Amino acid sequence: MKFNYNMPTKILFGPGKLNSLKKEKLPGKKALIVISAGNSMKSNGYLDRVIEILNSKGIKAVIFDQILPNPVKAHVMEGAKIAVREECDFVIGLGGGSSIDSAKSIAVMAKNPGDYWDYISGGTGKGKPVENGALPVVAITTTAGTGTEADPWTVITKEDTKEKIGFGNADTFPVLSVVDPELMLTVPKKLTAYQGFDAFFHATEGYIAKIANPFSDLYALKSIELIARYLPRAVKDGNDLEARTQVALANTLSGFVESTSSCTSEHSMEHALSAYYPDLPHGAGLIMLSEAYYTFFASKVPERFISMAEAMGVNVDLLPENERPMAFVQALVKLQQDCEVDGLKMSDYGIKREEITLLADHARETMGGLFTVDPYSLSLEETTEIMKNAYK
Amino acid sequence: MKFNYNMPTKILFGPGKLNSLKKEKLPGKKALIVISAGNSMKSNGYLDRVIEILNSKGIKAVIFDQILPNPVKAHVMEGAKIAVREECDFVIGLGGGSSIDSAKSIAVMAKNPGDYWDYISGGTGKGKPVENGALPVVAITTTAGTGTEADPWTVITKEDTKEKIGFGNADTFPVLSVVDPELMLTVPKKLTAYQGFDAFFHATEGYIAKIANPFSDLYALKSIELIARYLPRAVKDGNDLEARTQVALANTLSGFVESTSSCTSEHSMEHALSAYYPDLPHGAGLIMLSEAYYTFFASKVPERFISMAEAMGVNVDLLPENERPMAFVQALVKLQQDCEVDGLKMSDYGIKREEITLLADHARETMGGLFTVDPYSLSLEETTEIMKNAYK
Ligand SMILES: [Zn+2]
Ligand SMILES: [Zn+2]
Repeated sequence: MKFNYNMPTKILFGPGKLNSLKKEKLPGKKALIVISAGNSMKSNGYLDRVIEILNSKGIKAVIFDQILPNPVKAHVMEGAKIAVREECDFVIGLGGGSSIDSAKSIAVMAKNPGDYWDYISGGTGKGKPVENGALPVVAITTTAGTGTEADPWTVITKEDTKEKIGFGNADTFPVLSVVDPELMLTVPKKLTAYQGFDAFFHATEGYIAKIANPFSDLYALKSIELIARYLPRAVKDGNDLEARTQVALANTLSGFVESTSSCTSEHSMEHALSAYYPDLPHGAGLIMLSEAYYTFFASKVPERFISMAEAMGVNVDLLPENERPMAFVQALVKLQQDCEVDGLKMSDYGIKREEITLLADHARETMGGLFTVDPYSLSLEETTEIMKNAYK
Repeated sequence: MKFNYNMPTKILFGPGKLNSLKKEKLPGKKALIVISAGNSMKSNGYLDRVIEILNSKGIKAVIFDQILPNPVKAHVMEGAKIAVREECDFVIGLGGGSSIDSAKSIAVMAKNPGDYWDYISGGTGKGKPVENGALPVVAITTTAGTGTEADPWTVITKEDTKEKIGFGNADTFPVLSVVDPELMLTVPKKLTAYQGFDAFFHATEGYIAKIANPFSDLYALKSIELIARYLPRAVKDGNDLEARTQVALANTLSGFVESTSSCTSEHSMEHALSAYYPDLPHGAGLIMLSEAYYTFFASKVPERFISMAEAMGVNVDLLPENERPMAFVQALVKLQQDCEVDGLKMSDYGIKREEITLLADHARETMGGLFTVDPYSLSLEETTEIMKNAYK
């Protein structure tokens, strides 16, 4: 049993916690606030609240409001240019995963020369070392899905090559994150489900990954338990603050899992789908893949699957031994039904059956790293097989 | 559900992990290494190994080898003077809790004026704010007890007033800690038991504390489970590396508990005992207090006690409901028997029954803060009653 543990982010958690930001020491006198191109941060008043808190602390703010749901490299470069020009001391990501991920990537490019893809490993990335660190990042999350407020990862798409690749290092952990479930009450029903499942799969992948350790196991099983229990409630009634709070906690726990273990190839496969079909939400893509993916792996690491089934509330003692691992897959399908996302189809987003081999290959090309932490080493054929089984 | 989470220390965990220190970026070019006045760091070769690693990285080292088992303020001031004079960039605490705690306190006084007690809250401490932070601290722990490698706390005794008071802030978290169970194989039987129980009570106190949160709960229950399962083995056979590793993990988890929740008044009571009777090991003092302490609190937070009993492996479903909370206390007594520490007596260390009221008063005077996080607010009479019940 050997591992390195690193999750340095300070977290303010709970309903109303955005107000506590007033009492925190922030890393500078001028912030770049990164938000989405949509209107919700403004119409919900979140942007104004953050600016007001900054002003009360004598901190100036510059706004960059261009981020897309699948954030792109062009906006990273543009945001970094503004951060440099305006001499910002730190970057605040306010919103969902796309805004916070972009804030991290902008923070890197505000301190390092060249192009963002120079620093990306995989695909056409040049994999150069990041020499100059990054500006400090503060994350204020208004969704419960990516866990990005508690991990160093950022996922950006290179538009021309359709590569959607994760990146991160010790400098891209947020120094401070606010997880205030009150800011999540307005997330629409479908997105609540997609994002909740994204968090769920960060936990399940991190739990079956070869590099899992006792810390990531603790976080993962608790996250799985909480999502199984509370996500259906949060989906059914978006104003159920208790359910929102527990799902937010699960999501933050899943961020811890991503920091201390790793996602597996399920995420590589999904990134291939949503890089080619940007209308496909990340969480929806994962849901489409999941039954086939976990069915394949159930026999590879049965003990892990039994623990995950138990975390989902299955009394495995009542089952014959050989049925216990697959009880997790059954509970997963049931959870998808309870969250009304069991009918998702790749074909509805324009994905064609004939493209699957190409997409499987793309997944291995651009995000091959995650395949190396799978508990069983997939061939291209097996990757394609899983994705074909998931196709409908 | 509202809380702040902060545990920024990076941890290298596992047998042989000391060697990984070579690959880590360390915070400067010159280190003060703080070790005990005993000979074990030298005779076991640990000091040489650390110096060799530093040298291989071009880092110079100055040694301060004066720390006592119950570390005192005089040595904090002396160490800080050396750190300043030698222009050390960071402080390495190598050894048990006393060396690492002293390293933290030295790191503070190397950057701040005046006397260490100026910054202490409680007792005769002046409670001044620490203006200038602290030198970075690296912790290399060779025992499994205090959890100090994963928390910001340091406990130092002021010799003349016999005050033994904890201190810490965001700057006294180690930036990096090495938890290498191979370094713990030489800890003698008795100390293994005392230190293991110290870790155990950090978990149990943090679990019943009013400020417990979902993260500290995860860490605490896992720590309780691991200690109940592996401490007897580590005590019986000090060379059982698996047991040492699991107890080391439990201890680090308990450090996380201390960082995210808090110790309770049991620790205040013990500090009063061992401040007046410095021959009494901290863990032994806690063991002496524990049966009376947890018997008192079992009826105050029964649900928490049932969960702790379950973590210790008790099948509470087999018990009538009203007996479940006390099942934890019974399992605790059993664990003490299994670790051969059930016969400890205050009187064997010279503590007199007539002094108990005075010691209870001293506990509340110097470490009153921990009483405020107890799940039930103890009066002086009740504090005395618990300590009298513990007396033999
Ligand atoms: Zn994801
Ligand atoms: Zn202790």
